[in-house]
Amino acid sequence: MKVKGILFVVSAPSGAGKTTLSKKVTESVNDIYHSISHTTRPPRPDEINGKHYHFVTENIFERMINGGEFIEWALVHGNYYGTSMRNLEILEKEKKDLLLVIDVQGAEQLRRKFKGGCYIFILPPSMKILEKRLQKRGVDHDNDIKKRLKTAEEEIHHYKTYDYTIINDDIDEAVNQLKSIIFAERCRYPNTIPELPDLKL
Amino acid sequence: MKVKGILFVVSAPSGAGKTTLSKKVTESVNDIYHSISHTTRPPRPDEINGKHYHFVTENIFERMINGGEFIEWALVHGNYYGTSMRNLEILEKEKKDLLLVIDVQGAEQLRRKFKGGCYIFILPPSMKILEKRLQKRGVDHDNDIKKRLKTAEEEIHHYKTYDYTIINDDIDEAVNQLKSIIFAERCRYPNTIPELPDLKL
Repeated sequence: MKVKGILFVVSAPSGAGKTTLSKKVTESVNDIYHSISHTTRPPRPDEINGKHYHFVTENIFERMINGGEFIEWALVHGNYYGTSMRNLEILEKEKKDLLLVIDVQGAEQLRRKFKGGCYIFILPPSMKILEKRLQKRGVDHDNDIKKRLKTAEEEIHHYKTYDYTIINDDIDEAVNQLKSIIFAERCRYPNTIPELPDLKL
Repeated sequence: MKVKGILFVVSAPSGAGKTTLSKKVTESVNDIYHSISHTTRPPRPDEINGKHYHFVTENIFERMINGGEFIEWALVHGNYYGTSMRNLEILEKEKKDLLLVIDVQGAEQLRRKFKGGCYIFILPPSMKILEKRLQKRGVDHDNDIKKRLKTAEEEIHHYKTYDYTIINDDIDEAVNQLKSIIFAERCRYPNTIPELPDLKL
């Protein structure tokens, strides 16, 4: 018997592949949803409002902060990112798991406010590969890439404060590792309490 | 980089399928060995000395106890079962993982003496199925089966003291769950420390 859903929190520096990884996993694992964050960052060409993010103005975002609507929020590279309380309701209401992709600042806020949760850090195999991935993505200017790499260097030192680390070298292997973590956490008491009345547990 | 091997400890009542499950998993997962226990119980027809158990006499077993050669040992249904210290050397020496199948008494001794380790409890789906499995196995007399069921009822209450619980209803699903636990634990810091010199972790 599932008492409530499990919150999986995934953090990684820009370009480590957290979005692709999370998408592949939530698409192939049952009973887990991808949390949709709010942001003031402009959508990339392939991003859809309400699917990838709730894209909102700074005005709206700041009103939501003041209204206490976020369980965590952060200002990253000049843009706001946040997770609304409403996102987490699914854990209790539907007893479904939730996968939340947030940066290290957001994860720290969550740890303080939310009891439980499973924290996973995605590492790139090297800074060189991270740089190449950011260049290949082609959405950032050279200056932005430098800024992202600088932030990445700071962020990756937080990996020890997470429960699990995945090195995203081969995407299929990384997907399998994240799936294993989800399946394993579902076997943990008291995440799940065995519903076997005959055993009188 | 693997600092040292991980010790996976599997407990379950007789007939819950721990032997089949552990065998299937160690056969299909890389870099994990099945620990071979010592016992004074007579071998079953299909069991090979040195492969399934080290079958020894009571005299030898008791000499080993007195010599401090066991990290854990227990007397179960009139037979001795124990894990020699030598079994665990592989963790440090070869940095390979070790899967150890022991009863709840043995697991309690291990927790006190061995730092770290990942504890997994296998539950049968019901007492009726457990009884059927013991009858089907055909190695125990009716009285022995009753004794094993009585012990099982006591043992299963310990499941909450383990890190993970697997309900062995469908063997393939149970195998996948145990594999997931192994893969997930390998992603845990400090079980494994990422060896990525370029990231300056």
